[in-house]
Amino acid sequence: MADPLKGKKRGLFVGRFNPIHLGHVEAIKRILKEVDELIIVVGSAQHSHEIDHPFTAGERITMLRLALEEVGIDPSIYMIIPVPDVDAHTTWVSLVIAHTPRFDKVYSNEALTRRLFKEAGFPVESIPLYKREIYSATEVRRRMLEGEDWKELVPRSVAEYIESIDGVGRLKDLTKSDKPSQGSNPRIR
Amino acid sequence: MADPLKGKKRGLFVGRFNPIHLGHVEAIKRILKEVDELIIVVGSAQHSHEIDHPFTAGERITMLRLALEEVGIDPSIYMIIPVPDVDAHTTWVSLVIAHTPRFDKVYSNEALTRRLFKEAGFPVESIPLYKREIYSATEVRRRMLEGEDWKELVPRSVAEYIESIDGVGRLKDLTKSDKPSQGSNPRIR
Amino acid sequence: MADPLKGKKRGLFVGRFNPIHLGHVEAIKRILKEVDELIIVVGSAQHSHEIDHPFTAGERITMLRLALEEVGIDPSIYMIIPVPDVDAHTTWVSLVIAHTPRFDKVYSNEALTRRLFKEAGFPVESIPLYKREIYSATEVRRRMLEGEDWKELVPRSVAEYIESIDGVGRLKDLTKSDKPSQGSNPRIR
Amino acid sequence: MADPLKGKKRGLFVGRFNPIHLGHVEAIKRILKEVDELIIVVGSAQHSHEIDHPFTAGERITMLRLALEEVGIDPSIYMIIPVPDVDAHTTWVSLVIAHTPRFDKVYSNEALTRRLFKEAGFPVESIPLYKREIYSATEVRRRMLEGEDWKELVPRSVAEYIESIDGVGRLKDLTKSDKPSQGSNPRIR
Amino acid sequence: MADPLKGKKRGLFVGRFNPIHLGHVEAIKRILKEVDELIIVVGSAQHSHEIDHPFTAGERITMLRLALEEVGIDPSIYMIIPVPDVDAHTTWVSLVIAHTPRFDKVYSNEALTRRLFKEAGFPVESIPLYKREIYSATEVRRRMLEGEDWKELVPRSVAEYIESIDGVGRLKDLTKSDKPSQGSNPRIR
Amino acid sequence: MADPLKGKKRGLFVGRFNPIHLGHVEAIKRILKEVDELIIVVGSAQHSHEIDHPFTAGERITMLRLALEEVGIDPSIYMIIPVPDVDAHTTWVSLVIAHTPRFDKVYSNEALTRRLFKEAGFPVESIPLYKREIYSATEVRRRMLEGEDWKELVPRSVAEYIESIDGVGRLKDLTKSDKPSQGSNPRIR
Repeated sequence: MADPLKGKKRGLFVGRFNPIHLGHVEAIKRILKEVDELIIVVGSAQHSHEIDHPFTAGERITMLRLALEEVGIDPSIYMIIPVPDVDAHTTWVSLVIAHTPRFDKVYSNEALTRRLFKEAGFPVESIPLYKREIYSATEVRRRMLEGEDWKELVPRSVAEYIESIDGVGRLKDLTKSDKPSQGSNPRIR
Repeated sequence: MADPLKGKKRGLFVGRFNPIHLGHVEAIKRILKEVDELIIVVGSAQHSHEIDHPFTAGERITMLRLALEEVGIDPSIYMIIPVPDVDAHTTWVSLVIAHTPRFDKVYSNEALTRRLFKEAGFPVESIPLYKREIYSATEVRRRMLEGEDWKELVPRSVAEYIESIDGVGRLKDLTKSDKPSQGSNPRIR
Repeated sequence: MADPLKGKKRGLFVGRFNPIHLGHVEAIKRILKEVDELIIVVGSAQHSHEIDHPFTAGERITMLRLALEEVGIDPSIYMIIPVPDVDAHTTWVSLVIAHTPRFDKVYSNEALTRRLFKEAGFPVESIPLYKREIYSATEVRRRMLEGEDWKELVPRSVAEYIESIDGVGRLKDLTKSDKPSQGSNPRIR
Repeated sequence: MADPLKGKKRGLFVGRFNPIHLGHVEAIKRILKEVDELIIVVGSAQHSHEIDHPFTAGERITMLRLALEEVGIDPSIYMIIPVPDVDAHTTWVSLVIAHTPRFDKVYSNEALTRRLFKEAGFPVESIPLYKREIYSATEVRRRMLEGEDWKELVPRSVAEYIESIDGVGRLKDLTKSDKPSQGSNPRIR
Repeated sequence: MADPLKGKKRGLFVGRFNPIHLGHVEAIKRILKEVDELIIVVGSAQHSHEIDHPFTAGERITMLRLALEEVGIDPSIYMIIPVPDVDAHTTWVSLVIAHTPRFDKVYSNEALTRRLFKEAGFPVESIPLYKREIYSATEVRRRMLEGEDWKELVPRSVAEYIESIDGVGRLKDLTKSDKPSQGSNPRIR
Repeated sequence: MADPLKGKKRGLFVGRFNPIHLGHVEAIKRILKEVDELIIVVGSAQHSHEIDHPFTAGERITMLRLALEEVGIDPSIYMIIPVPDVDAHTTWVSLVIAHTPRFDKVYSNEALTRRLFKEAGFPVESIPLYKREIYSATEVRRRMLEGEDWKELVPRSVAEYIESIDGVGRLKDLTKSDKPSQGSNPRIR
């Protein structure tokens, strides 16, 4: 019986994409030169409406689809899969494995992600980063909050989408969290 | 078929009440001029014995009952309902809805609470705050820890109750958390 | 410092109230002859839209308020508090304790509830049941499903409320769960 | 500001796909005649290695991709998103919403799924079923266990994939669960 | 750098031990002939006060210690480690790994346990069972409930311990669960 | 019926042991002069691969066994039991009780642990600390990261074990967490 995937090489790329920016897009294009298919894991899937995680998993998936469509990447060669955070890092690796098709290699520059997958026996490779001091989600959110030009850091379709859902307004509201009031701050654990 | 609630207007007020203070009481009195019934949600219900959350949900419910009885608010026009925190803010809204009778309006000054309920389609209104620089739970806990007069900030019955459960002693113990010892610090996630 | 609760005797009564019926009302009236205040715990608070748990915690709280108002029980002498189920029975007892004001006695006819609170050191007492073969939530739901007269088993205001939220329609839908279809059956764990 | 999705109609189809069969494929083809894009939710995503849920979410995603590729459905018009079960049905709906791009309509024949999305305000439509007495995952698993021809019920590529991961062997092992032994039966809650 | 464990062979044996019986003891003795050290995992650790799981993890650990002491097994060559159940079987394996010292081989007769560890790459071996039709925890509990002689199936010290905690009384109470009453049945999910 | 534990006094000692050091060993030796048996709870059991919690519960159990064997403590007089953190501190106490054999006294210097067990009715005692400014897990990890001599703070067998699993390398990787990259930081809640 033939393994229908035999011969194909599949990579795994984990990010949180809050929001996706041009650095992500460059990294994905680069990885796709090395693998036949790419699984893009949207991490921290249960989080949203937090200063560091303003967008829902659904919104982040939407942005990824728009961004990759914009640069003409064939949707048959990638998959986007949300995976929630869990308490235990080692359990998180088993959760990624259970939620994804078989993969051969992990692409990551993040030290913890790299170590967890290495300890689990996967080959792990770094991705040369594209202008990383500006192409980062942290920088995008900072510019959003300070009224600077964040749109140049993200694909045009992503910028339009963020505006259509009032993403900047949401992020600004999240920073106004007004602790000493009677209003509640529904704390994330 | 008649809706037995028809014609009544119900408000929702979310707080953590660690502990309840006179600013909370003023806010509740003010909202009760606008609605027929008020649901008071005790948020972060699963937390206690933390520096910012010293009291259990049961203790906070007890304080709310005492405080509202002290100012003569009719217990037939309000309900107190504890709701735990969850990982996902959007899920938290659905949890509040599932735990409470139908409500028409949300009262809150907290930016995140306001946005979450607005995105879920509820009308949200601000509450004019009463001397908010001193009437805040943070200020009450600060005075407790520094030996200043915290009792003037809370209803008299609440002050008595807090003393009966050695609330100040508990709060002081929580600040003594002695990390480098052999003793454990049973961390909240 | 006086304990503001000293001298008052508080009882705890645990039920799921899916839905509340006249047997519950009789039991509550009877317990209120023995205690000064009663905490009514709405158990399995996170469950709803299941055949044995059709109503949300919020709907069950609404029914309890309506039922006790209908028989003229003073709302200052009882409290209704939802508590979720958890995996571990012994942990569940600690959760009830954390969510409720101090109580002195537990009223229950249910063997497990009785044993758990006894092992935790609480006095537990039985409640003489009123026509229990017909006044049971199981019987109410059975009659709802088979088109028999269920309204005579519940307070009039509760019957009206259940009709206003199409409770019988929901229950009937829950029994139509159509497993072999493509539709999902979002299983409760 | 233009909504980049404006004008497109997106459907939601929820299933568990244990495994995907030709009835699923027909339903998806039919829905795709009515909507521009389809979100396929893989429900009960955390479950696997159970008699009714033998496959992991990742395996089920793999099968869906293979099946839809086999019938030539353009991968740019559908998305596959795993969503875990949670305790509370109403919370589950909010979880689906948070994990998915905006959708306009829900397709389901399952009574509970239909009611939950209707109560949440979504239009819900039935899907005419194709030979449903045989095209069902339950029937596929029954044939697998009894050594009958299950391959005729699923797409050819799915049959090959299931064989490549020894899916039938796994299912058979799951039925041999040997309770009175010393071996553990790691119970799912 | 020397691995301090090098050269030692460690086995893993998973059970629920509700309660431990002589068949368990025989199996452990037999495995200890093949390995240098044995990790005994007490599964379903969060469960207790259920008909199939009457004992807490702490009680089951106590019984294991008593039983192994009774037959003179050196406590330096085994470890007892409780591990809770989780939703996902594959995650459960990663949880076992994270809670235990490194092990080389898994001993189990339970089909699911065997498959899960095999899929995770561990060697798995069966244990010849000793009079398994009577030496089973199910049989012990059945005899407890029906007033038959259960003590002959467990080590003497375990029988004494069970009596000291009124284990039979608890089990009988658990069977009296009196659903149609007002008392709650705090359901385990 | 005799309680098989009667007459024995059992202590409880809670720590996180990230990693175990000579101060822990001294404390355990001291407590064992006062009690017949000691339960050592490995707290925060689900955490690992974090800067403050680098080691898995299984690794910490391994270290405890090695350390106590090194100083010749009889394994029949202590037990090591992992207990996870939970959201609610009061629930955590009930979890410890459910996971452990009956104990008579709690040994801890940590203010929160002391208060929680006191409020639950247990006698709690302090442990005179041995050179605590250097014998602390925080100090061990600091030295590991800064290349100083950490081995003198831990038992020799523990130092060897940590080297065999590349514990220092793991800890260093955890500090390199490279947030603004595309790599994910699988956040612990």
